[in-house]
Amino acid sequence: MNRNSVTFQKRITIQSSACVGGALEGKGPLKDSFDLISSDSRFGMETWEKSEAEMVRICNEAAILKANLRPEHIDLTFSGDLTNQCCASTFGLKNLGIPHIGLYGACSTFVLSMGMAAMALECGLCNVALATASSHYSTAERQYRFPLEYGCQRTPTSQTTVTACGSVVLAIYHGKNVLVKEFLPGIIQDFGIKDANDMGAAMAPAAVDTLKRYLTARNKKTDDFDFIITGDLGVRGHQIFSELCEVEGIDSKNFLDCGKLIYQNDADIVHSGGSGCGCSASVFAGYLMSEFQEGKLNDILLIGTGALLNASTVLQKESIPGIAHLIRLKKEKSWES
Amino acid sequence: MNRNSVTFQKRITIQSSACVGGALEGKGPLKDSFDLISSDSRFGMETWEKSEAEMVRICNEAAILKANLRPEHIDLTFSGDLTNQCCASTFGLKNLGIPHIGLYGACSTFVLSMGMAAMALECGLCNVALATASSHYSTAERQYRFPLEYGCQRTPTSQTTVTACGSVVLAIYHGKNVLVKEFLPGIIQDFGIKDANDMGAAMAPAAVDTLKRYLTARNKKTDDFDFIITGDLGVRGHQIFSELCEVEGIDSKNFLDCGKLIYQNDADIVHSGGSGCGCSASVFAGYLMSEFQEGKLNDILLIGTGALLNASTVLQKESIPGIAHLIRLKKEKSWES
Repeated sequence: MNRNSVTFQKRITIQSSACVGGALEGKGPLKDSFDLISSDSRFGMETWEKSEAEMVRICNEAAILKANLRPEHIDLTFSGDLTNQCCASTFGLKNLGIPHIGLYGACSTFVLSMGMAAMALECGLCNVALATASSHYSTAERQYRFPLEYGCQRTPTSQTTVTACGSVVLAIYHGKNVLVKEFLPGIIQDFGIKDANDMGAAMAPAAVDTLKRYLTARNKKTDDFDFIITGDLGVRGHQIFSELCEVEGIDSKNFLDCGKLIYQNDADIVHSGGSGCGCSASVFAGYLMSEFQEGKLNDILLIGTGALLNASTVLQKESIPGIAHLIRLKKEKSWES
Repeated sequence: MNRNSVTFQKRITIQSSACVGGALEGKGPLKDSFDLISSDSRFGMETWEKSEAEMVRICNEAAILKANLRPEHIDLTFSGDLTNQCCASTFGLKNLGIPHIGLYGACSTFVLSMGMAAMALECGLCNVALATASSHYSTAERQYRFPLEYGCQRTPTSQTTVTACGSVVLAIYHGKNVLVKEFLPGIIQDFGIKDANDMGAAMAPAAVDTLKRYLTARNKKTDDFDFIITGDLGVRGHQIFSELCEVEGIDSKNFLDCGKLIYQNDADIVHSGGSGCGCSASVFAGYLMSEFQEGKLNDILLIGTGALLNASTVLQKESIPGIAHLIRLKKEKSWES
């Protein structure tokens, strides 16, 4: 098992999923997969930070409701986000009264949340878990880069932080379908990228490392799966990822990226595509879950990708390490029966 | 098991521990328990952020060495800190090449790290894990409160962020002694405290809730344990915690607090005592582990306490929720044999 993935012995099942998003996400190709869109991305709140926390609250309460449960039925939440000290998670979840595990994996957090929640279910720490992650364009931009009012021109390699939250309720088998089958934690990779507007390049090597370790350990090929779906490499990062995989002898023809799926391919608006914890969280909880339910997906690898930086590390000329966590999601036959 | 603690079925054993600290910690009553003290708290680096990352690196390499292992023998690290986006952990651990799980639990992070590492060992995700947490006075003060150069006068209830890192190597039984026996995740509690210089008061209700839930679920009393040791409530927070426990009918006579243990009781210098992830991490990895090894401790509850705020939430007049995670640490008889 050393440094390999864990295969969960219990049937860790996705009982429900929910996702909510902001204005730009509500105009994208996946708009119909969202449970709720805030047309001004404010979710009725006065500050962007409070908006993100409110988005987290709404999304998680929706996921609980969609599982026909109430907060008191949930044993444990796993959550993280990009705000300093993960305060969107804290303030979004604090009134639910559910035991809470805070995680930080940058934009890989949603996959980390699902992996850790599955682990908690596997070892009996809980019977029902909630896994979630969020990001908000307006909290992230002013925190990582420039004040929004400054109207800074963005570079072609920059990505657009997705305003969204995605949540899943996980439990040991209760007659439903999509299972969290395997989990492989990522190793931090630092290839010396220093441009905070080129995070796809910073994250791609970590995704390659994780995928390669997984395929080697399990003696699998990429075409054993419907798709290999990365979190938020974006147009440029996904191209780098695919090319690096080909160099390693890994076939990249069934690769997708949530950062490319979520927006119209309009480089003038979203540049290199979507990023942020909410990107893979909402694309999975909305679009990919509906694809599973419609029978279009059966077995995928979801690779959450994170760029490990803060505003100070960039100013202090540090490089931007990346990390990528992997989960395998598989629909079992009992779904059809 | 619902919302109760998990009792680990495997022998999750502490193989080694290490702690390093800064100048003030090197003058305190626990100074001899540190493996290394940086006399200027800089650990040879040019910026405070790089100093904290270097402290993390040194401490974790020391813990690995003290377990007679090399980094390639460690399957998984669990780590968090107080810097924005947990960058002290990222940059301190990035060159070890070990799969990494990032956590955020504010000052409760060390207990969270140990609990999650024990869970990963229990469910077979890894065979050897490293759990760590850090904080640095000079990175935390300027991030949460005021620039250091400003020389702001501090209030009597304020606490001193401990400059320290603590690490433990955990593995399934290999003939050594202190076991991580039980883990209970905390519920976020918000009692409306808004003073970022009174975090003890913000965290105390969470510690009460966690302890009460644990004792009720396990049908235990506090005098079933050698000590009930909180992370960093400080002088004022610990007094509130003890009083609230007495109101709940919980005997507080064997309560200790790492934030009170780490410094001389000199209110002019440290005010209400120590705080920060590094406080409980270093006091446990140094002083408490040596007390276990000398036979003075056999069975304790360690309650990591965290205040969930960031600089923006304070400016936006949000309250400061608290969280407290609990682990039970027990020396098994095989130690003597």
